[in-house]
Amino acid sequence: MAEPKASNLTWHPGHVDAERRAALLGHRAACLWFTGLSGSGKSTLSRAVESALVERGVQAYVLDGDNVRMGLNRDLGFAAADRGENIRRIGEVARLFVDSGTLVLTAFISPYRADRAAARALMPESFVEVFVDPGLDVAEARDPKGLYKRARAGEIQGFTGISAPYEAPESPELRVDTGALSIEASADAVLSYLQTQGHIPAG
Amino acid sequence: MAEPKASNLTWHPGHVDAERRAALLGHRAACLWFTGLSGSGKSTLSRAVESALVERGVQAYVLDGDNVRMGLNRDLGFAAADRGENIRRIGEVARLFVDSGTLVLTAFISPYRADRAAARALMPESFVEVFVDPGLDVAEARDPKGLYKRARAGEIQGFTGISAPYEAPESPELRVDTGALSIEASADAVLSYLQTQGHIPAG
Repeated sequence: MAEPKASNLTWHPGHVDAERRAALLGHRAACLWFTGLSGSGKSTLSRAVESALVERGVQAYVLDGDNVRMGLNRDLGFAAADRGENIRRIGEVARLFVDSGTLVLTAFISPYRADRAAARALMPESFVEVFVDPGLDVAEARDPKGLYKRARAGEIQGFTGISAPYEAPESPELRVDTGALSIEASADAVLSYLQTQGHIPAG
Repeated sequence: MAEPKASNLTWHPGHVDAERRAALLGHRAACLWFTGLSGSGKSTLSRAVESALVERGVQAYVLDGDNVRMGLNRDLGFAAADRGENIRRIGEVARLFVDSGTLVLTAFISPYRADRAAARALMPESFVEVFVDPGLDVAEARDPKGLYKRARAGEIQGFTGISAPYEAPESPELRVDTGALSIEASADAVLSYLQTQGHIPAG
């Protein structure tokens, strides 16, 4: 959708701009967009990074697929249009968090390049795509919720990686092999990236 | 809607709980829900409070009606169902901000008691309803966007206060008469309330 439906809108710029927020908070906002298959470790990794950041005094917060679906997106199912709307809203909410100065982490499969590109386009300066990629074999072997088994048995239709596509990122800012690396090492890789890019001070 | 549409959901509690966040941030999260007529001063007052909070080092952020409508809620118009969904989503997003430790301020007409009650029910411990109430005569005399004039001329249908109801809060945590008080004095009243309730340290 190119234009918002409502008319008579006036954009209210915050009186507090991004520079001022960053100066007061001591870190630079970003959206860490974790993408990967079910069972790849997105939620676990994003929570580990969040914890490490908050303990360092960085305002960080995870938007998690299941949690958001219980609230904001409780009206959405898993049909194609609903999946697209799910990711669209999450991108918009992530942008609000970035605007607030937060280092927001999103942990969603988000299998389509176009959806991720749309989220990136909302905040190109702040978007960090993190491809959580242990490989399908590892993710399926973990199968923490037993979903791969059910998908292979045909009990779940349109399951990403089995009966629906996962479009891997072509040039993510970061790729983390959570099959080869422990969660701690994976989290360290993300934190190192944030330091290198000047989002957070050296630990 | 009593239950989310999607099944197979697992709630992922943050590893960082609210107490830990509050301790690290030095303030207690809340949702300041500003409600009142068009022209009552909700946006201006919420921005003034946000500025004052951020300058004190408090993580604060305004969700503003027009701004949210350009992003998250750009698919919604002004029909009754869309208005309800608009406020529902804003309540859910405000809850996410509160969960992140932010002192979030929402500035929406939100004319219906039931909608505001639903937002409150999402975060009863953290919800602070602020009735911005200069009276209809003052709001209409200000008419910053010329909307009252157009509503009186019949050019806008269902305009709150003129041709659609505004259900005033019966027991708001705070009522601010922005007709009698300057913006600075109004903002001070809100800040005093937050101090008294222990959300922020004494200035």
